[in-house]
Amino acid sequence: MAYELYYWDGLQGRGEFVRLALEEAQAPYIDIARGRPEEGFGEGAILALMNSKTEPHIPFAPPFLRDGDLIVSQTANILLYLGDKLGLAPRDELRYVVHGLQLTIADAVSEAHDTHHPISSQLYFEDQRDAAKARATDFIDHRLPRFLGYFEQVLASNPKGSAHLVGDSLTYVDLSLFQLIEGVHYAFPRAMKGFSRRYPLLAALRNAVALRPNIAAYLASKRRLPFNETDVFRHYPELDHAAL
Amino acid sequence: MAYELYYWDGLQGRGEFVRLALEEAQAPYIDIARGRPEEGFGEGAILALMNSKTEPHIPFAPPFLRDGDLIVSQTANILLYLGDKLGLAPRDELRYVVHGLQLTIADAVSEAHDTHHPISSQLYFEDQRDAAKARATDFIDHRLPRFLGYFEQVLASNPKGSAHLVGDSLTYVDLSLFQLIEGVHYAFPRAMKGFSRRYPLLAALRNAVALRPNIAAYLASKRRLPFNETDVFRHYPELDHAAL
Repeated sequence: MAYELYYWDGLQGRGEFVRLALEEAQAPYIDIARGRPEEGFGEGAILALMNSKTEPHIPFAPPFLRDGDLIVSQTANILLYLGDKLGLAPRDELRYVVHGLQLTIADAVSEAHDTHHPISSQLYFEDQRDAAKARATDFIDHRLPRFLGYFEQVLASNPKGSAHLVGDSLTYVDLSLFQLIEGVHYAFPRAMKGFSRRYPLLAALRNAVALRPNIAAYLASKRRLPFNETDVFRHYPELDHAAL
Repeated sequence: MAYELYYWDGLQGRGEFVRLALEEAQAPYIDIARGRPEEGFGEGAILALMNSKTEPHIPFAPPFLRDGDLIVSQTANILLYLGDKLGLAPRDELRYVVHGLQLTIADAVSEAHDTHHPISSQLYFEDQRDAAKARATDFIDHRLPRFLGYFEQVLASNPKGSAHLVGDSLTYVDLSLFQLIEGVHYAFPRAMKGFSRRYPLLAALRNAVALRPNIAAYLASKRRLPFNETDVFRHYPELDHAAL
């Protein structure tokens, strides 16, 4: 039975981290919001499930994944679940190391989001522009190099080699790190200038993931939506500047 | 062998969610930062491990837990790990439901933190006061009722009864929800006025957790530090107002 992914249409968003794992593993899945409403799909299906009075365990927000009767919510938790099912995670206790890294990526994603929405997700960017500039400056000058430097160090420290974050084969967190790197390149091209020189191990990982056959096919497909300004990673030139 | 908890001294912080699980289960643990520096403890031990060049898997930030050779980072991930070890999580697939709820609590905690630090964690509150007021207003008017209303609904929907978030016995996420409720009461007493009437199931859960013998003993001990203004939950009266 196909996995059912519930996430908004029109953007990559947090759902993209899940899609990359599903696509890499060639797992059958239905992207619910992108289906036809007359067949019970579309974004209405997301809200219907969130507002269900009969589901035993309702999710707080998309993305969530339905696998039969089970609904798994929260991006990192979905990847934890799929990691086991799809062979994209270690079987031993290193699975907790992978998951800890995934949750650190989740923190970086949230902080990247908050550069354009530091006050409220209910307000437009234009209504919180000054705070956004201040938060983006802090993100570019302090937080982004701290995150990237950390992941570079994790790759350098991996006793099984620097081709993967954990162990000697691909896990879901390698795919997610690729997506984070893609996202911050889109949002902050000036801040990311010199990335490959400053973070050579991250750059090699990014390139290796992009060249994996299933990922390359996915990135070239219509299923991969372009980054845009309704997404988590947004390119507002006024929020971007060269790194310190 | 005792678990080793690495978290800053002087505040409850995110480490408190881990402590509550350890205390409930009466698991032996060492609170590393609160030990004597001359014995190798203290906050220096946290930084030493984060900056280690020999550890195979370094953590990004506290809290993290050491169990023998394994270092588990990220609060929710630590609880996932301890939930299995300490019997505070379901053995079946409901463990993913528990973890999804825990990650939603983590989101609420981060948003509560950002009410007083919406621009930068490196700046003082006083240097981001206007943005803090705006973000706190949004949190109290929109986000806090959304989180609390969601958890109330989860309790109401639990097919095994409303005494626990998942299943018919205590899991780590019940303890964490107690801590979230305590924290927002401390930070936002005006916003939380009428809590027990508006969220009767949450109020019952909070009281039930506080009365558990091991938790009650912990809360009365010196190990339970008081909330304060170096913590995640901070009481700044100017950020608090009655809920809509």
